[in-house]
Amino acid sequence: MAKGAVYRPVDEVDLGPDSDEPYVHAKAEQFSRMAGRKMMMMTWLLEAPFIGAILLFFLKKINRIPEMISLAELQEDPVFVPLHPYRGIPDRDAKCLEPDMSPPDKVQEAVDCLKSPEVLVSERSQLDFRRWTILDYARAYTSGRITPEMVARRFLAFLGESSSESLRMSFFISIDEEDIRKQAMESSARYQKGQPLSVLDGVPIAIKDEIDCLPYPTTGGTTWMHKVRHCKNDACCVSRLRSCGAVIVGKTNMHEPGAGISGINPHYGAVRNPYDISKVTGGSSSGSAAVVAAGLCPVALGVDGAGSVRVPAALCGVIGLKPTFARIPTKGVLPLSYTVAMVGILAATVEDALIVYAAISGEASPDCVGATVPKIGLPLLKSANHKSFDIKMAKYTKWFDDCSDDIRLCCSNAVEKLARTYGWKVVEATIPDIEAMRLSHIITIGSECYNYLAAHLPEYKAEMGWDSRMALAIYGSYSNHEYINAQRIRNRQLEFHKKILSEVDIIVAPTVGATAYTIQDDAVETGELDNQNGVAFVRYQAAGNFLGLPAVTVPVGYDRSGLPIGLQFVGKPWSESLLIHVASALQEICMSGYKKPEVFYDMLGK
Amino acid sequence: MAKGAVYRPVDEVDLGPDSDEPYVHAKAEQFSRMAGRKMMMMTWLLEAPFIGAILLFFLKKINRIPEMISLAELQEDPVFVPLHPYRGIPDRDAKCLEPDMSPPDKVQEAVDCLKSPEVLVSERSQLDFRRWTILDYARAYTSGRITPEMVARRFLAFLGESSSESLRMSFFISIDEEDIRKQAMESSARYQKGQPLSVLDGVPIAIKDEIDCLPYPTTGGTTWMHKVRHCKNDACCVSRLRSCGAVIVGKTNMHEPGAGISGINPHYGAVRNPYDISKVTGGSSSGSAAVVAAGLCPVALGVDGAGSVRVPAALCGVIGLKPTFARIPTKGVLPLSYTVAMVGILAATVEDALIVYAAISGEASPDCVGATVPKIGLPLLKSANHKSFDIKMAKYTKWFDDCSDDIRLCCSNAVEKLARTYGWKVVEATIPDIEAMRLSHIITIGSECYNYLAAHLPEYKAEMGWDSRMALAIYGSYSNHEYINAQRIRNRQLEFHKKILSEVDIIVAPTVGATAYTIQDDAVETGELDNQNGVAFVRYQAAGNFLGLPAVTVPVGYDRSGLPIGLQFVGKPWSESLLIHVASALQEICMSGYKKPEVFYDMLGK
Repeated sequence: MAKGAVYRPVDEVDLGPDSDEPYVHAKAEQFSRMAGRKMMMMTWLLEAPFIGAILLFFLKKINRIPEMISLAELQEDPVFVPLHPYRGIPDRDAKCLEPDMSPPDKVQEAVDCLKSPEVLVSERSQLDFRRWTILDYARAYTSGRITPEMVARRFLAFLGESSSESLRMSFFISIDEEDIRKQAMESSARYQKGQPLSVLDGVPIAIKDEIDCLPYPTTGGTTWMHKVRHCKNDACCVSRLRSCGAVIVGKTNMHEPGAGISGINPHYGAVRNPYDISKVTGGSSSGSAAVVAAGLCPVALGVDGAGSVRVPAALCGVIGLKPTFARIPTKGVLPLSYTVAMVGILAATVEDALIVYAAISGEASPDCVGATVPKIGLPLLKSANHKSFDIKMAKYTKWFDDCSDDIRLCCSNAVEKLARTYGWKVVEATIPDIEAMRLSHIITIGSECYNYLAAHLPEYKAEMGWDSRMALAIYGSYSNHEYINAQRIRNRQLEFHKKILSEVDIIVAPTVGATAYTIQDDAVETGELDNQNGVAFVRYQAAGNFLGLPAVTVPVGYDRSGLPIGLQFVGKPWSESLLIHVASALQEICMSGYKKPEVFYDMLGK
Repeated sequence: MAKGAVYRPVDEVDLGPDSDEPYVHAKAEQFSRMAGRKMMMMTWLLEAPFIGAILLFFLKKINRIPEMISLAELQEDPVFVPLHPYRGIPDRDAKCLEPDMSPPDKVQEAVDCLKSPEVLVSERSQLDFRRWTILDYARAYTSGRITPEMVARRFLAFLGESSSESLRMSFFISIDEEDIRKQAMESSARYQKGQPLSVLDGVPIAIKDEIDCLPYPTTGGTTWMHKVRHCKNDACCVSRLRSCGAVIVGKTNMHEPGAGISGINPHYGAVRNPYDISKVTGGSSSGSAAVVAAGLCPVALGVDGAGSVRVPAALCGVIGLKPTFARIPTKGVLPLSYTVAMVGILAATVEDALIVYAAISGEASPDCVGATVPKIGLPLLKSANHKSFDIKMAKYTKWFDDCSDDIRLCCSNAVEKLARTYGWKVVEATIPDIEAMRLSHIITIGSECYNYLAAHLPEYKAEMGWDSRMALAIYGSYSNHEYINAQRIRNRQLEFHKKILSEVDIIVAPTVGATAYTIQDDAVETGELDNQNGVAFVRYQAAGNFLGLPAVTVPVGYDRSGLPIGLQFVGKPWSESLLIHVASALQEICMSGYKKPEVFYDMLGK
């Protein structure tokens, strides 16, 4: 229970004449007027280092600030959203979707943008390794070779295998076998009638346990969140996937409560990297990245507040797409950070990311954000001749090179190859104050995360992992001034990025500065704080979260130990179409080198 | 000098390949990895009351947070603005202005909404007392009976009188006699040629010293602000007034740095109430209210962050109009609070407030706010039959009655008379959590004010009045959590007010809970903190600032000592037109009782 005021939801408050809401008269009587010598003395004391803090503590208490503000339990998000100083940037050469289209119709529009499944299969038949895609599932179901029910059975069998003592992959926090079978049965029936809802019908999709999804509790990676906040409905993005027929296969593991980047969860296990089970996956959407990498699902949803989709995607060798802030409704997502986090997509291929992007994007309601959200644009990949696109990429070399040797080499090569293959330009740019942006981003996400959890920490802190507790102790220590200055640096960086992106189409950088590192035994017990790897993981993330810009990571190779490396593109606001286009061009030149992970499940095999 | 980073303005930063901006590598090396026992120990220490604070202090220091964030000097505002969950509310029965009209054209549109000067004069000729209006000035100038130069001379003579030892009204912080004479001369020349720029040509208008206005420094009521922030241009609202021909007569006194509500400034004197020179004017736009009350100007500009326009307007018996947040550009206004303060208008009559509102409203540039700003609407007062307007007013009686007996009686009578005269309805409503809103508002404005000043406090704090110093010590003590929770309460209140205002047209309340109080000698020396009067002054202000709603105060009578009392209307976002309409109806039934102040100057008399 919160020790302060518990504010009832707005809809439950009576605003009429007979309301029982108390009128609280301000307690001004407790302060006598102050001026002259008395005021000078008091000011000195308030300004003094220790005595001041103690006096201010009591001053706040007399004013009922702890009771009414600090310790209060609130349902509402804060009133501000990050705004882009951009408006209506046209999405080049894209097909624009009307906002009122249904998710299945949007999915069909996305599929119409792709080459036909036959062409894609024949183009990719020579590859050493490739994962099954949404269109592979849809073809297999339509042909009758396999049914959603068979896939569900395989999924559950493989999941059992992955949870065995020898693997302990810790992919999921909750799985409801009955619910999965039921969805699969319904999907199979639709295919039997020849009436699938969309190409997503019957496709297994996993959801990060930060997103509401029935019949599961939403734990946020904790042991208690679902006790204080009940999951009553599907999140908006989940209900859109459902309306396309997707089979939701459970809630994936995550860093507790999104407050770390390793993906090690002391309650639900360390998610293990399918490319090397002794290594981390990265986080916080660790389970979602791992299930896609391991072939269990072609797509999973994550949430990205400080690279939480892109980091594990890169470390697990899959696609990670984080659209522009507010492009996907956050309704039904745990508000662990109000102004930086966004639903993102982890997928086996760029095409799959595009299909799911089409399914779940679009405003929840016209009033959900203050900024005018432009229409969703889809890239015409079917007819794509990447050479005809005159793309200009900005590269800040000092920053680009601030990573491990393998990553530097691999990412530089990928950029050069892109430029060579398609005739695209790379220009050098300078992004100032990157470290100030990183700190401001941490202050912002930390302050907002702490704020959301604070009302429940007195009761539940002891149940949390030590790394989360330590993070929260730090998050709660920032002052109002530090938080607001962080927002000023944010404004400044928005201006810098606006200028840079007015000269180029995208900014290119490695996705992370280090590849997956080893999971140590003590970390599994207590969680861990690894600042060196942590900083290397988040180094390239801020523009996507703090500035709300869309970003995508594409696997471009492996380090000397065979661990995946990702290259990241950051685009202009609302330019997902162009970004997906560029990602598709990169995937095309890299996919011949893609390798099969150590742990991999063949869901559609013979 | 700031002790932290001094961030250069965005436009001065080179983003090209040869930029000298340093690339700062994150100092992650200083933290070893932590897990297991070591992490448990560290977490305990960080969570401990005193040791934790000290450890966190050093942790922040190692991370360069003081250098890069807390002590940094920044040019940018933070990235968020308060948003209204309302969109495009049609302004009932209003004339809509196109955004690209020139200020003089807008002024003419406003004048066309009014009854003709002849009708107004004849209607008002029976009044015991009335102040000269903009149209009186324009008629006098056009007729040639008087010239702007004569008015400027009278203004300077009267100002000398008001500054004499016996009065010490302390209206202004800066006056440039030469500049005033020059503007008046140019205006006179325009009238001689028969080419005045608008009805505002030659009209003396005073500007609060929080708004940039050449050739004056912008002190914000301090002795140092202009040393660290140079006034290089007129603020947007001032340049619009100039383009209409207004004669800007100097920078009015204000509460230092807007951080108080009494209007007593230890550096530039306590502004004295024209109705009783032993009393305060209220603040912070104290000088602007007083010069209008004393007849020196028909109109003055103020800034309203916690009632700073409405409070002194009510205490000095004039009109105070605070439009919707973002309706008037804040470009060139000291950002003493980013999300609550707004330019407002102090005027002798509702008609004058309307004319100046038309002159200065409208977006500075399409990108200045994220929310879509609807067109400016002007009320058709010329044809107004207030009975034909079916106005519904919400009254929260417990709150309405939380004021002095005289105010309660006077304001209740005014509401009853409104209802009786025009057949309007009064409905009872409940506004929940008013005290939580007041605290959240203080936390917000305090945090933002502290944030803006913080970089300069080490050098200039000692130059500030004791009341401002004390306020800043408190403002700086709020945590990130308290600030963000205040924003959540803000969201909640936006929802409450949206619901209430969906049922009624306006909310009615007294403007302030107490009339002007006595200026004591010790207060003049050190400033004063008078929480009892302070709380009574701000009790009814929050919706106008914290929620960005438009509000207007109209004088409705006097207490037993002859001190003015104001009644306030709060409207839906962007509904200034309706609000001005209602204010005009109220003025019509109250103005027969208006009294002449103790200190009054007849600028257009024989």
